[in-house]
Amino acid sequence: MPMKNVRIVLVETSHGGNIGAVARAMKNMCLEDLALVNPRQFMSEECVVRASGADDILQEASVHADLDAALADCTLVVGASARLRTVAWPQLDPRQCAGLVAERAAQGQQAALVFGRERTGLTNAELERCQYLVHIPANPDYSSLNLAMAVQVLGYELMMQRAPMVPPQPRELATAADMQGLFSHLEQALEDIGFLDPRKSDKLMRRLKRLFHRAEPDQDEIRILRGILSAAQGRKSARRE
Amino acid sequence: MPMKNVRIVLVETSHGGNIGAVARAMKNMCLEDLALVNPRQFMSEECVVRASGADDILQEASVHADLDAALADCTLVVGASARLRTVAWPQLDPRQCAGLVAERAAQGQQAALVFGRERTGLTNAELERCQYLVHIPANPDYSSLNLAMAVQVLGYELMMQRAPMVPPQPRELATAADMQGLFSHLEQALEDIGFLDPRKSDKLMRRLKRLFHRAEPDQDEIRILRGILSAAQGRKSARRE
Repeated sequence: MPMKNVRIVLVETSHGGNIGAVARAMKNMCLEDLALVNPRQFMSEECVVRASGADDILQEASVHADLDAALADCTLVVGASARLRTVAWPQLDPRQCAGLVAERAAQGQQAALVFGRERTGLTNAELERCQYLVHIPANPDYSSLNLAMAVQVLGYELMMQRAPMVPPQPRELATAADMQGLFSHLEQALEDIGFLDPRKSDKLMRRLKRLFHRAEPDQDEIRILRGILSAAQGRKSARRE
Repeated sequence: MPMKNVRIVLVETSHGGNIGAVARAMKNMCLEDLALVNPRQFMSEECVVRASGADDILQEASVHADLDAALADCTLVVGASARLRTVAWPQLDPRQCAGLVAERAAQGQQAALVFGRERTGLTNAELERCQYLVHIPANPDYSSLNLAMAVQVLGYELMMQRAPMVPPQPRELATAADMQGLFSHLEQALEDIGFLDPRKSDKLMRRLKRLFHRAEPDQDEIRILRGILSAAQGRKSARRE
C-alpha cells in the first residue's frame, strides 16, 4: 500500500514544525521514506504535534550530512523550485512529475523529490544535482508555498496516479419509458388535485418535464415520485401508465 | 488575476493557526474570498504567523453565524469530505471538482467549497446543503488531511485549470545529419587520440551512439561537443563531416 521507491528529501529545514507537517502529508499520501539533510531542528515539540500521529515517518527518517548522501542510490532526482528559473533546465509541472516518478518507481528505480530551505529553496549547486525541476503553478505575486504544502501537492499528484477516478455511482437511470410513465401520471395527478387546467396544461407540463429530465432520476426515484403522486391522488397504490 | 466567484468556507474551525495556513494557501493559489462560519478562534498570534503575509485574505474574510448565511448567494456548493460516505451523494475527485467549479465560476456563478471542523468534518445536515462532495484520495489507514492541506490541494487543482502545462523548452534539437556529423567526428577523434582500434570499433561506437541519441542534444550542444573533439584532436577549429 505505501508507495515504494519514492523518497522525500528535505534540505536544511529550519523549523521542526514543518518537518512534522511534511510527515503527516506524506503518510496521508502513502509515502514513507523521508530523508533529512542537515536539519536545523528536528523532533521538536511542534514537530511531533504537527506530525499528528505520523510519528512512524519521523522515527524512520534518515538524517544525512549532505545532499549527495541522501541521493546516493537514486536514479531519478527532481528538485522542487518555487520559481521558474531563468536557467534552462528541464521543467515539469506536478502532474508531469508524478507521471514520471510513478513510472520509474514502478520499474523499481529509486526516485527522490528534493525540497530546499523554507526561505531560500535550493542552491544552484543543489539544483544541478537534479535531472528535472518541478514547479507548482502559483500566484506570481505570492508564489512561495509552505514547505509541507508543496510536499502535499506533489504527494497528492502521486496518489492520483494510483487512485482510480471516483467511480460513477451505480445508479439504474430511468429509461425513456419510465419518464413517460412518470409524466403521464404527473399530468393526471395534477388534474386530479385540481392544479392543472387540461385545456392549457402544455406549457406547464413542458417546464416540469424539463425539470425532471435535468434531475436524471433513477428507477428508485421514479417509484418514489409516483408513490407521492398516487398519495396525492388519494389512492396510494394506484398505478396509471 | 485572482480567481473570481470561488469562495472557501470554513465551518467552526477550532485553531486560528489553521485559518492562517488556509489564507496563505488561498493566496498562493489566487483565491481571495474566505468565509468563516462561527470560528472558535480567529486572528490569534498563530493565525497571523501562519498566514505568512496573506493578511489581506484574513482582513477581508467574512464571518457568519451559520452556514446558510455564508452560502446564501451560491449556486454551486461542494463539501469536502474526508471519507467516502456510505450515503449515496454525488462524489467528485479534486480534479473533477476543479473542472466543475472553474466552469461555473467562469459563467459568473458563485461557487463555494465548504470545509468542516478539524476533528469531525461536516455534519450530515451541512453535507445535505451541498450538491456534491469532493474527496481527496488518501491512505485509507490515515486519511485525514490537515484542513489547510485540503484547501491547498483543491486550490492547486483550480490553479491547474488555469495554468498552461509547462511549455516544452524551445530547443532546436539536433537533426539526424547533425548526429551523423557528430558520430563521424567522434569516431575519428577517438582514433586520433589512440583510444579506438579502428578494426574493432563498431561495438563501442554503437554504445556511444545510443548514449548520445538518448541525450537528445540540441544544435548548440552538438557544436560544444564537436568543439571538445576538435580540441582533443589538437586543432580547435577543425571541422570534419
